[in-house]
Amino acid sequence: MTSNAYPTTQTIHTIGILGGGQLGMMLAQAALPLGYRCVFLEDNADCPASLYGTVYSSEQLDDFISTADVFTLEFENTPTDTVQKLSALSKQGQKKGMFPPPIALEVAQDRLKEKQMFNDLDIATVPFESVSSKAKLDAACQKLGLPIVLKTSRGGYDGKGQYVIKETSDIAPAWQALKDAVSGKGSLTPTPAPLIAEGFINFSREVSMIAARAQDGQIRCYDLVENHHHQGILAKTHAPAVGTSQLFGQAQTAITTIMNHLDYVGVMALELFVSKDARGHDRLLANEIAPRVHNSGHWSIEGAVTSQFENHIRAVVDLPLGDTDNVHPSIMVNVLGEYPSISDVLSIDGAHYHSYHKSERADRKIAHITLMPNDVTDLEKALGKLVAVLPNKVGLDKKQSESKK
Amino acid sequence: MTSNAYPTTQTIHTIGILGGGQLGMMLAQAALPLGYRCVFLEDNADCPASLYGTVYSSEQLDDFISTADVFTLEFENTPTDTVQKLSALSKQGQKKGMFPPPIALEVAQDRLKEKQMFNDLDIATVPFESVSSKAKLDAACQKLGLPIVLKTSRGGYDGKGQYVIKETSDIAPAWQALKDAVSGKGSLTPTPAPLIAEGFINFSREVSMIAARAQDGQIRCYDLVENHHHQGILAKTHAPAVGTSQLFGQAQTAITTIMNHLDYVGVMALELFVSKDARGHDRLLANEIAPRVHNSGHWSIEGAVTSQFENHIRAVVDLPLGDTDNVHPSIMVNVLGEYPSISDVLSIDGAHYHSYHKSERADRKIAHITLMPNDVTDLEKALGKLVAVLPNKVGLDKKQSESKK
Repeated sequence: MTSNAYPTTQTIHTIGILGGGQLGMMLAQAALPLGYRCVFLEDNADCPASLYGTVYSSEQLDDFISTADVFTLEFENTPTDTVQKLSALSKQGQKKGMFPPPIALEVAQDRLKEKQMFNDLDIATVPFESVSSKAKLDAACQKLGLPIVLKTSRGGYDGKGQYVIKETSDIAPAWQALKDAVSGKGSLTPTPAPLIAEGFINFSREVSMIAARAQDGQIRCYDLVENHHHQGILAKTHAPAVGTSQLFGQAQTAITTIMNHLDYVGVMALELFVSKDARGHDRLLANEIAPRVHNSGHWSIEGAVTSQFENHIRAVVDLPLGDTDNVHPSIMVNVLGEYPSISDVLSIDGAHYHSYHKSERADRKIAHITLMPNDVTDLEKALGKLVAVLPNKVGLDKKQSESKK
Repeated sequence: MTSNAYPTTQTIHTIGILGGGQLGMMLAQAALPLGYRCVFLEDNADCPASLYGTVYSSEQLDDFISTADVFTLEFENTPTDTVQKLSALSKQGQKKGMFPPPIALEVAQDRLKEKQMFNDLDIATVPFESVSSKAKLDAACQKLGLPIVLKTSRGGYDGKGQYVIKETSDIAPAWQALKDAVSGKGSLTPTPAPLIAEGFINFSREVSMIAARAQDGQIRCYDLVENHHHQGILAKTHAPAVGTSQLFGQAQTAITTIMNHLDYVGVMALELFVSKDARGHDRLLANEIAPRVHNSGHWSIEGAVTSQFENHIRAVVDLPLGDTDNVHPSIMVNVLGEYPSISDVLSIDGAHYHSYHKSERADRKIAHITLMPNDVTDLEKALGKLVAVLPNKVGLDKKQSESKK
């Protein structure tokens, strides 16, 4: 394509994305209509993003770097040294930037640093303690009161690297199971790091807020949304979360404070618990950040004036952010493991299907469906129809998910 | 990608599209999230659609055919023999279909057949006469009354192959200019065909209706929209057209009748004039059909629950059609010839930018922008801001377009 297929003022033509999964794919779906090309650093040549641009393997890192003008990521466990390198090239003026900044990854990859940052910024969390010895674990159990959850602070997903301590007799086996993480032995974590002991808090629901921050510091926040998980995997998101108007300001202040603190650029997700304060009022406790576009923001493709993917791209290429208001209320449902009949799904008015072109595998995220009928009174009815035609209803069908507990 | 990246019931994996321009590109943008791949038959390897799938040149027709399971088109001047061949292969059961059917192209490529079909189906048009000799032209001028427009019935675009006969002395030079089309000599038309003489009708505005017809005969119609042209090129579309509720039913009946008559599958556009009947009431006169997705339906990407592109794909792969209701009112503006500053465009809330990745050339369609602010009272204000930042305002800026007349 000739070079004048761009406005003459445009200096960024190609966006390099670390990772080529469905998040990278949806970033490209947003970037191409804005006039940009995307390339991906990803070892799976058949990844979802491969439909939208060239995929470079990690061995082709130099080619990837030379092709792209600016860099971002879709996967926060990207090797930090690659991110550091791209950030350094940008600081030297050779590239137009690496967004989000490396510091955001460092914080997001470490539960202890993350929660410490929240508290340093006066953002409430569950009570927690750093645990680097058996004696400190004993002290933490004393201070927090049982039950607690003991976790590795780095690595460990989907329940791995976690131990619930319900009574005093659980303390020794929990320490035995996780102590190698402290010294960096074994396969639990990438680097030695203290454990984190978290107190139990009763919460009524999980919500998240997505926000975008531009290079000039402008921030735009999406609605608070309500997330339903099944065994740690997001099953569905209601956008907006019903009855959270009183909480919106608190979440907005929290994510704004975090983004400004990190000098963040791009889209970030903040996961929060809705709990009760001493007077019985709803309050938010910050759980974790994701320094990237997030599954709980997929509804925004149809459900918001500007999607999280487009706003992330806009931030990365230094364009003004778009309106984050919702267009109509919507519900996003993940398709896990097995494809439905697309004909059954699309017979529901207002159903938007997003295949990731991935092969079926138990509980794998292979597609998502956003329901946004024009008339909001049809929304719950549409959800009922959708659940009826999904082969895997985990986290969606009340009867089934209860019977599995 | 492994074959189980599809639902097991899915027999169509790849859609072959004749043409690879921006319409093909936007069809692919709709098809990929539904889980399909697209390939294109197009001699320009750098075409807009090349970002979304493999492009085969006309010399690679056999490869194109063997790769795709079902076929459609984005360009109605596709060679009829290719369409016939793909249709025949489908009838033999070797392929899953060629949509729309060849008959729809034959009609759309011939102004005389098209208007005759309209009248045969009791759909009003401007008065017209077939002209195959000087004597018939004289008779047509007598019957229709001057002024008339004399046109080739096949070929001829953007004012070529047309002659306005204002007074009797224009008749002889008009016949001289266009008579070769009747015998098939010269370069005016692809094949010999009579001319068409059309009477002049005062009309207040041009509107169009887009509709989709599924393989089971289900039809869903979009809102009537109002189109503004500059020298035959669409400049902008208002969706829906204000004050057309009384006309919707007439347009819906017309396009439904036409689609059923042609046993049409896919999206069709019907262009209409709003004129006055004898009692001074608004009435519609059919001008022409486009047997494909249409520029006056681009607003539907954001502005309708299901876009024209997605509904065309759904029809082609035999899925149920989606809701055609508008989400909020919107305005689509074509970017002609020169790219604007994308930063200026995106600083308008509710602006959606669609680059075609084409190089700049005078009056060429290189992008479009759909304005859909969440609050409809911001819509005209957004249009004002957009016109202010577009380098080429033809058909948009009242002062400029009037001074050019």
